[in-house]
Amino acid sequence: MVQEIKLALLQMEVVDDKSANIKKAKKMISSASKEGAKLIILPEMFNCPYDNSRFRDYAENPSKSPTLDAMAKISRDKQIHLVAGSIPELSQGNIYNTSFFFNAKGAILGFHRKMHLFDIDVPGKIFFKESDTLTAGEKITVIESDLGKVGIGICYDIRFPELSRLMALKGADILIYPGAFNLTTGPAHWKTLLRSRALDNQIFIAAASPARNENASYVAYGHSLICNPWGEVIKEAGSKEEILYSTINLEDNSKIRKELPVLSNRRDDVYSLSEKL
Amino acid sequence: MVQEIKLALLQMEVVDDKSANIKKAKKMISSASKEGAKLIILPEMFNCPYDNSRFRDYAENPSKSPTLDAMAKISRDKQIHLVAGSIPELSQGNIYNTSFFFNAKGAILGFHRKMHLFDIDVPGKIFFKESDTLTAGEKITVIESDLGKVGIGICYDIRFPELSRLMALKGADILIYPGAFNLTTGPAHWKTLLRSRALDNQIFIAAASPARNENASYVAYGHSLICNPWGEVIKEAGSKEEILYSTINLEDNSKIRKELPVLSNRRDDVYSLSEKL
Repeated sequence: MVQEIKLALLQMEVVDDKSANIKKAKKMISSASKEGAKLIILPEMFNCPYDNSRFRDYAENPSKSPTLDAMAKISRDKQIHLVAGSIPELSQGNIYNTSFFFNAKGAILGFHRKMHLFDIDVPGKIFFKESDTLTAGEKITVIESDLGKVGIGICYDIRFPELSRLMALKGADILIYPGAFNLTTGPAHWKTLLRSRALDNQIFIAAASPARNENASYVAYGHSLICNPWGEVIKEAGSKEEILYSTINLEDNSKIRKELPVLSNRRDDVYSLSEKL
Repeated sequence: MVQEIKLALLQMEVVDDKSANIKKAKKMISSASKEGAKLIILPEMFNCPYDNSRFRDYAENPSKSPTLDAMAKISRDKQIHLVAGSIPELSQGNIYNTSFFFNAKGAILGFHRKMHLFDIDVPGKIFFKESDTLTAGEKITVIESDLGKVGIGICYDIRFPELSRLMALKGADILIYPGAFNLTTGPAHWKTLLRSRALDNQIFIAAASPARNENASYVAYGHSLICNPWGEVIKEAGSKEEILYSTINLEDNSKIRKELPVLSNRRDDVYSLSEKL
């Protein structure tokens, strides 16, 4: 396992034009690669507006997917690992919100289908019902790679401590959350949720949001960020398009876990948390 | 269930003199009662210095406990519900860090024994090993009362999302954490942990710390606080001795849970969290 990794979070502005989105993603990946980033992370729904009425039009079957083909090629060309944020994935008529993970040879090592669908109704502020169009994933995702074990959750998945804990217990070295919070839940919850997932599990977390696009029907919060295993935000973006870099050392997880042995102090004899298989 | 409750968190300075501590607790309870508080919360180890070398000397068996007798009497006299922070409890030769809950008639409705013992070693900053002297509790505590269902955890218990989640799933209306964080973990983690437990479970949380006593061997952080079910800090103390008041409406929990149905969006079919019985 490589201990020290340069991360890049691509806080890209997503528009209602798939090929423009793919082109932008490739351009930002090239820039990040030039800066030496080895693990590059795109935001949730990076090729598609976050809009129930657009998911089906934009959805792609992984076996013939222009988006994934482009991401495989650039991962291989630039020799970088890529968490391809998420895209609407078409499978047997269902649409999933899915994140694909590519290694530096352009191979898909694994994928995560968003497991908790976002249904919110804060009167006068925000209404969105993902379950109207999307199907939920059924699996917890921790992927082995040359860089270490990578746990992936998507957006609303962040709100469920069970998922992050189970990824940590499965040996994840870093948790990655592509996510598009909005202007109600973003300022209120985004940073606290990410800090607490890092802190509870004493693990690095990187969360990539789309840039804020005031013209979109769903306006993303931005503020992509990286937390260390002490629960500190070590890098945070603003709301506009930008690339957020940080070089992290995964050995810091074990250092913190030695000082304050939270994971080994869990009371497995009093409560039990497990993945149903 | 009474929906609207005036809370008082007693951030008292604890000294190395048990009768002085009991006297101070009674005085602060009387003040809070005069202000109309109906649920009063003392801090962790309110009758005893937070010091491994003192726990055994201060420990009391509940069947002949001057501390608990005084707390029962004042709860009855003032007709208030009282979470008596915690005291070192002697039982069959073991010492537990235990919080007793009194109703307005002075009866003990239940108690929580700290379940996760605090063992920390941050070189050059803080070393404490509770497990050297204390025995850990074995039960999750949610107590039925006239004010609603009260979940209790103590200090280090805060770090474990399994416990707060299980209290919420058992129907708790409010979570109460007497806790004495220190000057390393307090500024770094106290507020984030409490906000995230409130936010994850969409529930009110009240956490009472001793006041900061720079002469003590273990210096508490202070900053007692109350969070609402949207994860906002609604009241926060400084570091000195003070009483923190807030009137909360427990119906706010259901309002937030309706807007953003996190608890019902849990994926019980993918993971399972349960209390071992």
